[in-house]
Amino acid sequence: MSEAAQTLDGWYCLHDFRTVDWTTWKMLPETERQEAVNEFLGLVEKWNKTQENKEGSHAIYTIVGQKADFMMMLLRPTMEELNVIVTEFNKSKLAEFLVPAHSYVSVVELSNYLASGENPYENPHVRARLYPELPQSKYVCFYPMDKRRQGNDNWYMLPMEERRSLMHSHGMIGRQYAGKVKQIITGSVGFDDYEWGVTLFSDDVLQFKKLVYEMRFDEVSARYGEFGSFFVGNILTEEEFPQFLTV
Amino acid sequence: MSEAAQTLDGWYCLHDFRTVDWTTWKMLPETERQEAVNEFLGLVEKWNKTQENKEGSHAIYTIVGQKADFMMMLLRPTMEELNVIVTEFNKSKLAEFLVPAHSYVSVVELSNYLASGENPYENPHVRARLYPELPQSKYVCFYPMDKRRQGNDNWYMLPMEERRSLMHSHGMIGRQYAGKVKQIITGSVGFDDYEWGVTLFSDDVLQFKKLVYEMRFDEVSARYGEFGSFFVGNILTEEEFPQFLTV
Amino acid sequence: MSEAAQTLDGWYCLHDFRTVDWTTWKMLPETERQEAVNEFLGLVEKWNKTQENKEGSHAIYTIVGQKADFMMMLLRPTMEELNVIVTEFNKSKLAEFLVPAHSYVSVVELSNYLASGENPYENPHVRARLYPELPQSKYVCFYPMDKRRQGNDNWYMLPMEERRSLMHSHGMIGRQYAGKVKQIITGSVGFDDYEWGVTLFSDDVLQFKKLVYEMRFDEVSARYGEFGSFFVGNILTEEEFPQFLTV
Amino acid sequence: MSEAAQTLDGWYCLHDFRTVDWTTWKMLPETERQEAVNEFLGLVEKWNKTQENKEGSHAIYTIVGQKADFMMMLLRPTMEELNVIVTEFNKSKLAEFLVPAHSYVSVVELSNYLASGENPYENPHVRARLYPELPQSKYVCFYPMDKRRQGNDNWYMLPMEERRSLMHSHGMIGRQYAGKVKQIITGSVGFDDYEWGVTLFSDDVLQFKKLVYEMRFDEVSARYGEFGSFFVGNILTEEEFPQFLTV
Amino acid sequence: MSEAAQTLDGWYCLHDFRTVDWTTWKMLPETERQEAVNEFLGLVEKWNKTQENKEGSHAIYTIVGQKADFMMMLLRPTMEELNVIVTEFNKSKLAEFLVPAHSYVSVVELSNYLASGENPYENPHVRARLYPELPQSKYVCFYPMDKRRQGNDNWYMLPMEERRSLMHSHGMIGRQYAGKVKQIITGSVGFDDYEWGVTLFSDDVLQFKKLVYEMRFDEVSARYGEFGSFFVGNILTEEEFPQFLTV
Repeated sequence: MSEAAQTLDGWYCLHDFRTVDWTTWKMLPETERQEAVNEFLGLVEKWNKTQENKEGSHAIYTIVGQKADFMMMLLRPTMEELNVIVTEFNKSKLAEFLVPAHSYVSVVELSNYLASGENPYENPHVRARLYPELPQSKYVCFYPMDKRRQGNDNWYMLPMEERRSLMHSHGMIGRQYAGKVKQIITGSVGFDDYEWGVTLFSDDVLQFKKLVYEMRFDEVSARYGEFGSFFVGNILTEEEFPQFLTV
Repeated sequence: MSEAAQTLDGWYCLHDFRTVDWTTWKMLPETERQEAVNEFLGLVEKWNKTQENKEGSHAIYTIVGQKADFMMMLLRPTMEELNVIVTEFNKSKLAEFLVPAHSYVSVVELSNYLASGENPYENPHVRARLYPELPQSKYVCFYPMDKRRQGNDNWYMLPMEERRSLMHSHGMIGRQYAGKVKQIITGSVGFDDYEWGVTLFSDDVLQFKKLVYEMRFDEVSARYGEFGSFFVGNILTEEEFPQFLTV
Repeated sequence: MSEAAQTLDGWYCLHDFRTVDWTTWKMLPETERQEAVNEFLGLVEKWNKTQENKEGSHAIYTIVGQKADFMMMLLRPTMEELNVIVTEFNKSKLAEFLVPAHSYVSVVELSNYLASGENPYENPHVRARLYPELPQSKYVCFYPMDKRRQGNDNWYMLPMEERRSLMHSHGMIGRQYAGKVKQIITGSVGFDDYEWGVTLFSDDVLQFKKLVYEMRFDEVSARYGEFGSFFVGNILTEEEFPQFLTV
Repeated sequence: MSEAAQTLDGWYCLHDFRTVDWTTWKMLPETERQEAVNEFLGLVEKWNKTQENKEGSHAIYTIVGQKADFMMMLLRPTMEELNVIVTEFNKSKLAEFLVPAHSYVSVVELSNYLASGENPYENPHVRARLYPELPQSKYVCFYPMDKRRQGNDNWYMLPMEERRSLMHSHGMIGRQYAGKVKQIITGSVGFDDYEWGVTLFSDDVLQFKKLVYEMRFDEVSARYGEFGSFFVGNILTEEEFPQFLTV
Repeated sequence: MSEAAQTLDGWYCLHDFRTVDWTTWKMLPETERQEAVNEFLGLVEKWNKTQENKEGSHAIYTIVGQKADFMMMLLRPTMEELNVIVTEFNKSKLAEFLVPAHSYVSVVELSNYLASGENPYENPHVRARLYPELPQSKYVCFYPMDKRRQGNDNWYMLPMEERRSLMHSHGMIGRQYAGKVKQIITGSVGFDDYEWGVTLFSDDVLQFKKLVYEMRFDEVSARYGEFGSFFVGNILTEEEFPQFLTV
């Protein structure tokens, strides 16, 4: 049996994708549409307070293409809070005009390939990564992934040393994108259908393609990566939200 | 031909996942919503009586993310009872506002890798596991799985001795989680699309991830495990149910 | 090129799975619901006459879980008759409240691995298996399957002798269940998406699991079996049908 | 690089499968149903004229099981004509009561494994196969397929000579069914999701199963064939069409 | 680790496929249908201006078969512009009668296998390919694809030199179709579910089949190509658009 990688785990995370049913939304009288938007902005206001109190974070992005119209990414200290937030959202007026398009349940994760010997949960640098305030970058990219277990390409049968070495090289690629792309890895083993979610933030959308493509030539991705659907989008601020929904 | 593993089989099991159609639910007058909730609580009251009589068990959990809004796990001595219960539920008022999201049919199973020479069905310890009262843990995790039959990684072509030895090591990992995670294995060969369902209960949701991830490095999972969708959720007590459905 | 297995082919077979739309069914006035049930029972009465005349057979079972609410299995001498029966059913009142959930088109098949040198179509024992009256067992199990053609596990590249020998051992397992499980194999090459349908009947639902699981350790299943969805259900007699639909 | 097989290409082909929404169809007043049927028969009348002028062909078959209620197979000299015909059909009254169930876009194809040295497009025998009048057989079978490219079973990496030899043996099986089964191969590389569509016509539906099953033991299918969904049906003549839609 | 291929990246690209809901479209009064068409033509007029200003390009094609009724291909300098255009379209009257059928997000890409040593973004020939005006060819073909990473057929584990050599031969096939087929490659790593989109334009639809089929015998496709769905269609000009929607 291989030695399991140790992980550090931070805030729980929900990626929630929705499609707008524009046809029924347009049927709603203008004043009711306004009320629905205001009710939603009221929810966001609560989320903002939570974020100011360092008790969670969130981000809202449109999604390009038909996979969804927008995505809410939510971070909270407990699974219950994610459930409460989404149930509250689902009961809102606006949600009547949205179709669930996709979701992903995970927890912010740092791998022991990176961790030092000290108690990492007391390290401010580590804490900033486990309990991050999500950036307000212009673009977001999200995709889930597995490590492959297929014939001779079985990540989980590799010795710890080899995995560590492979991940080190892999991390080197990521570092070249420091300052250009911020990456948040969330673990979803036992929580959702893939093993990890990867959320990338950047002010230059092309960097997502460059980063993911360059990594694909690295053995960790080339031999051991299995990827799910990719979602890409543009930031949708509270200020832009009413305009986004204006019909 | 390999020698087949012998199993002990207990209560039949149905996992039934539902999504709430909040839009139409909100259209229902408040009094009718109350009646629908009361009718459902009446069904649960019957299930409680069955549980008190040790003639079955049940648990209700919300589900985080868009896969479902809540899940009912039902255990009964016969397949017919599961059918009767669900048909009764499907005819209820509340069910008009629920969309079937997923289900899984299986039977509580213990493997002969664990069984002793005596008649296990008379052993109180074994009976407690074959006919369990479901715990009221804070969190649940459910996923179905197969043993792989792929090229050189074919579980069913291994000699009994090797399977027994591999399962022993695998079980050792599970034991480390004793007291933290309660696991109920249900067999579904001939009943549903995967070979087993795994239901985990814990008061610490992170233990699901730690357990499943650690096991993934064990050869039984690494080489021979094929996993379906993962569902994770929070307990939804009878007391909380009306509030959950308040709009 | 391998020598193809010769088959004996009997009645054409349709498995037709339906889900009840309870919400709209409940909207129908009681008298119209009664009429719809009576119209359906009239169809079943015709099917009964056909069965008495040995010109076909049928069985109706509920299905446990969300895959369907009930299943009709129909055997007839020609494909046209299956088409006529289902089109007539689809035009009925009851069908307005049913959602097609799954179907499978095949023909009762006996393999030459079992057949003797005589003209099998004149052998009464063989005829009873090619043109069977479906049993009224308490439980049914249905699943489709393929023989694998994957890398070194390619059934269709094996010499006839090896296939015959493997199938012989496989059949030995089935014989141990004689009296407990009745099995009807239907061939669907050229008719539907898998190569065979397997329908099992028993008065002890656990025997389905035991049989399928034991066979899975046999090389024919372990290396060469590919399985589709499994459906399991309880018998639904004409007498029980009105009660099943009472809301 | 392997030498690519040369193909001869004839009429473009659309297989268009539809399911009848019997519930809404029954809601339509009888006279409007009659008008809808007549409008459709008017379209078929135009198709008949095209066929008499040798400028195309068509066939209509019911489909057994829930995959569809009927299928229209259309052959025309250009892709535009297929588009025009289907758009006209989609705008018809009848189409309001049909649900698209499946479609396949391809072109009648003969392989160079069969072609002689002369200009094949001037050969009357070849022309009859490239621009065929579809037979009015009692039964149809349709399925799409690929040649496999998987590990050691990679059709496209085989030398031309080996492919030619394998296809020759494969064709020998088909010839044994001459007079019993008429086969039309349509190529769909670049047009639809599989590489070929296979349409079989016969007055004995069991011949489809025998032919496809026997071929499956031939190396071309056993090692190199990947098959999509199979559809089987009964002829639906213009005369029968009104009765088929009578409710 | 293999050396990653360098790419040149041009305009962002959205392929957006829609199906017409003819039934509800016909319910709309003629004048409102006309208004909806005119509103759409107004959007196209804006797109035309953008194209005249060399700030983007677009093309509209019908799609043959049930996958969609028409497809809009849009090229723009930024991801935001694609999002804005589609959101504006989604809010239009016409969009109420369209069902999203498929979409693909990518960016026009040239591979370094072709690029010279100079600064390619200043090369007029390169710029014409990175920021192309889409041709008004009679036919379009679109499909997404991956390079395979499977066992011994792992493109991303090949040395750069071998990939370069393989791509060179592959390109030679494409060149034989110069003048017959225009090809636009768009990269979608990090943006959508496949790694590339391929859009082919031609005045002879059969050339799509010939080109894709011939390439399939080339090692790059034979061993390393994984293909998604294929869409084929006929040009739909602004002048034809009103007629296309006339019911």
